[in-house]
Amino acid sequence: MSSYSPSIEKLIESFEKLPSIGHKTAIRLAFHMLDLNEEETNEFIKSITDAKSKLKYCSKCFNIADTDPCPICSNPKRDQGTICVVEDVRDIIAMERTNEFKGVYHVLHGTISPMNGIGPEDIKIKELLDRIRDNDIKEIIIATNPRVEGEATSIYLSKLIKPLGIKVTRIAHGIPVGGDLEYTDEVTLTKAMEGRREI
Amino acid sequence: MSSYSPSIEKLIESFEKLPSIGHKTAIRLAFHMLDLNEEETNEFIKSITDAKSKLKYCSKCFNIADTDPCPICSNPKRDQGTICVVEDVRDIIAMERTNEFKGVYHVLHGTISPMNGIGPEDIKIKELLDRIRDNDIKEIIIATNPRVEGEATSIYLSKLIKPLGIKVTRIAHGIPVGGDLEYTDEVTLTKAMEGRREI
Repeated sequence: MSSYSPSIEKLIESFEKLPSIGHKTAIRLAFHMLDLNEEETNEFIKSITDAKSKLKYCSKCFNIADTDPCPICSNPKRDQGTICVVEDVRDIIAMERTNEFKGVYHVLHGTISPMNGIGPEDIKIKELLDRIRDNDIKEIIIATNPRVEGEATSIYLSKLIKPLGIKVTRIAHGIPVGGDLEYTDEVTLTKAMEGRREI
Repeated sequence: MSSYSPSIEKLIESFEKLPSIGHKTAIRLAFHMLDLNEEETNEFIKSITDAKSKLKYCSKCFNIADTDPCPICSNPKRDQGTICVVEDVRDIIAMERTNEFKGVYHVLHGTISPMNGIGPEDIKIKELLDRIRDNDIKEIIIATNPRVEGEATSIYLSKLIKPLGIKVTRIAHGIPVGGDLEYTDEVTLTKAMEGRREI
């Protein structure tokens, strides 16, 4: 039913497959691509192929980086004895933006989720345990997302790691700074009450 | 200041340059690209290179198509004597969706816009006049956008073409179907009043 030429149609479909891109944006992006000159097009394509070819997983923490070990793991100023466990590479970036954490990371690349058929062996838990056994670790901070799967994974990990005599902590949950009590869901509010501190 | 690896940084920048893509969406798209397997990545890149290499301008109407002349110009069922003049290739698609117009098109690839240094010689006006002279044309429908530049271009064209003894029409402006009188700007409302018909 469409009146676009097959090649444009194909290009629009390609963009439409990307996350958070709807049909109208896909059309805009496709025509934008057609407007680019050869150099600009090649630059765009090169950024994709370069990223795909150069990036690899850090063999220590499973961050994605141009080098192995990644810049964080190979930084002598970082405390190798404190590991912050996150679900995803993007969580490292979020954490790094705080400029507060001086330890290293471990990316699970997912959470335990029986509903989606993801068990402990499907994410980087074994690698974390190996890392704990082979190194002198003082503390494991579990920073999985405060959702059902993240919580379950956190509990699973703490049960495995605590018996090894290592301190296991969980990041705090509560009302976000600037948040509004009135609009905070009851689970968060409960967590905020549980986590209250003397002032 | 960013903690991303250079290749990811470059990839995010690439996506951020695209229209209607903000920083957060660019990050999501970049990581989506990293998640694609080789086949999917190649397919995405191929859709871009294919479109760029296969598509050409129709030498008659300046539509973008895989063939020259384009499927509309080479369709014997279309009335070659009625030309609808549009600003952009995308306008053809919009018009074709109505399934009403049985003539052919002429894409100006812009509008006259002295503010942006675009004069009549910078868009496909000469080509339209050549086409009118070399063919038996009954009517020119000017369907440029109802904005300042579109109106100016429309007036400029009608002054050039009318003396050739050819019927020149302008698409109607008014309140869109489903639109609301209350929220219609006064220029549109004026146009709607001017264009009123007996019922």
